[in-house]
Amino acid sequence: MQYMRRAISLASRGSGFVSPNPLVGAVVVKDGKVIGQGWHKEFGGAHAEVNAINSASEPVDGAELYVNLEPCGHQGKTPPCTELIIRSGIKKVIVGMRDPNPLVNGKGISILRDHGIEVHSGILESECKKLNEIFIKFVTTRKPFVVFKYAMTLDGKIATVDNASRWITGEESRKIVHRLRQKMSSVMVGVNTVLFDDPMLNVRLAGKKPRQPLKIIADSSLRIPLEAKVLTNDPQLCLIACTEKAGKNKINEIRRTGAQVFVCPEKDGRVDLAWLFAMLGAMDIDGILLEGGSELAFSVLKDGLADKVIAFIAPKILGGAKAPTAVGGEGISAMEQAINLRDMKIRKVGNDFMIEGYLKNEYRVE
Amino acid sequence: MQYMRRAISLASRGSGFVSPNPLVGAVVVKDGKVIGQGWHKEFGGAHAEVNAINSASEPVDGAELYVNLEPCGHQGKTPPCTELIIRSGIKKVIVGMRDPNPLVNGKGISILRDHGIEVHSGILESECKKLNEIFIKFVTTRKPFVVFKYAMTLDGKIATVDNASRWITGEESRKIVHRLRQKMSSVMVGVNTVLFDDPMLNVRLAGKKPRQPLKIIADSSLRIPLEAKVLTNDPQLCLIACTEKAGKNKINEIRRTGAQVFVCPEKDGRVDLAWLFAMLGAMDIDGILLEGGSELAFSVLKDGLADKVIAFIAPKILGGAKAPTAVGGEGISAMEQAINLRDMKIRKVGNDFMIEGYLKNEYRVE
Repeated sequence: MQYMRRAISLASRGSGFVSPNPLVGAVVVKDGKVIGQGWHKEFGGAHAEVNAINSASEPVDGAELYVNLEPCGHQGKTPPCTELIIRSGIKKVIVGMRDPNPLVNGKGISILRDHGIEVHSGILESECKKLNEIFIKFVTTRKPFVVFKYAMTLDGKIATVDNASRWITGEESRKIVHRLRQKMSSVMVGVNTVLFDDPMLNVRLAGKKPRQPLKIIADSSLRIPLEAKVLTNDPQLCLIACTEKAGKNKINEIRRTGAQVFVCPEKDGRVDLAWLFAMLGAMDIDGILLEGGSELAFSVLKDGLADKVIAFIAPKILGGAKAPTAVGGEGISAMEQAINLRDMKIRKVGNDFMIEGYLKNEYRVE
Repeated sequence: MQYMRRAISLASRGSGFVSPNPLVGAVVVKDGKVIGQGWHKEFGGAHAEVNAINSASEPVDGAELYVNLEPCGHQGKTPPCTELIIRSGIKKVIVGMRDPNPLVNGKGISILRDHGIEVHSGILESECKKLNEIFIKFVTTRKPFVVFKYAMTLDGKIATVDNASRWITGEESRKIVHRLRQKMSSVMVGVNTVLFDDPMLNVRLAGKKPRQPLKIIADSSLRIPLEAKVLTNDPQLCLIACTEKAGKNKINEIRRTGAQVFVCPEKDGRVDLAWLFAMLGAMDIDGILLEGGSELAFSVLKDGLADKVIAFIAPKILGGAKAPTAVGGEGISAMEQAINLRDMKIRKVGNDFMIEGYLKNEYRVE
């Protein structure tokens, strides 16, 4: 258990750098002592098992290997890990979870067993699944894992009646949001959020130079101003999804900034989000952090396109029958049809609370 | 510490029955053994110290007395407890907190000390204060302690766009609400809540016959229908606060049901709530559980009349730009003017979360 926990913790160091690959960490143990460890550090780089075995401080023959995800048995960007494990003389492999990737699922384990290696699978499995929740959805559906995140007051407001939203939550919560942005390959908002708040939608964390996510704006008729910060900072990282309603001139103007414009099919007069998300999946965007606005959020949730909700709740009250809330749109009329969340978790973040929950989706590998 | 905890736990058994008296429990300890215990069981009944000493299984001389609140040293409905303690030969008294009642504060302790009894005060003080938060406000201000309670979805809605609100939260949360109603001497809503939901506003708990709270309806122009459940069930426990706007005939009709009608002064075209609450205080109503609606809640909060907020949050999403939220009205325009809460606590209740916090009020005995 402790070694698997260590593998998970090593794996998470790759967060934000390996997408759309899984997060993997590995620990080599011999005579009850850790003699090597490693993790998958960046997309295209060596796998965790390779790094762990190569880092070993003594010969690994007869050792045990702990790895949170089943080792791959196929040739990808790097040679199959099973080959190295077999060659190295490791006698026992402890696997957190099977690889949900249809190219691997169980094959890696079979290959190892066929070569006389003892394999145990399903150790700390739910932690391992949670660690790779983005990868699991992406590899089984080719669609991005969508996290809807918002900050609200205890009376459910995301801004004042005058649309002031800075800042609902405290510094600690905002720091977590930047870490989330760094973990996810993209961040998405509706154009109203750009018009009201003009956010940068980038990762701002002290100390290290972070990987920046793709900024996606849903803007059917291209109302975004050219001076919007998402376009003036790193426009090459900005993708705007519009429909045929958008004027050709505006499309060209925006493209000239370096940003991408997708002219998407319409659904109910807006960008067809299921289509857009499938398109993003095809571009290897494995995750989307949806940061508002409330109409976009309602569309995404009602169409079953979201996977997870993260709500930050600040200990304050704003009131206002007209103050905006996190999920708007038409709304659901009958209580029985409310969108249910499961696996709720809560933690205190500074003076705020952070509540997480999952949507009831079909793809989930349970 | 363990004996004081026991005293607190005994005290809480009186909850809902002693108002507007404090909750008090007492434990008599001799040679490290509990030989007697008691609590204040009902308004006008014997005090905890009396019940504890009288219940003792052996002579109490030389024993220690643990009590969460300073023993009274004045003649009230019953003789002063200090007299009995002195007569009984108890040698040491451990007090959770001083009595904030200006008639007592420190006097009980002085009397005991003057008679050679050793007194320690301030043991588990914050727990003792929390236990008697209603009493502390009432006895120091003669105004009711106001708890604003609501149930909302994770996206901040208290009902669907069609005003359906049954049920947002699960059974466990609703049971806690009934326990809260039993603890408080009154429950209050705005007339819109009566018109939309027609609630009973009574305590429904299996097993025991509960004490029922006074039902207060804020209804400036008396729009309440005579068939409303609050009037057809126990009308003598219903108090309706209107203003001069209400028609004389309607006032008389309602009074004929057995309900009370208060014609209150107006403030901003509505019932002057500060006036009403002072009036309720004069009637020995020491606590109000405010259960909605959202306009009333905003008035109470903005005017600084609330003391505590309890929010139940259900793991579901309803959406709807027009769906109602817990606190409506005009709302606060500038984020810096948000109403801040402190001492936040959270716990899981069934599938819901229950968040508690306090308003920053002046009277608080810290």
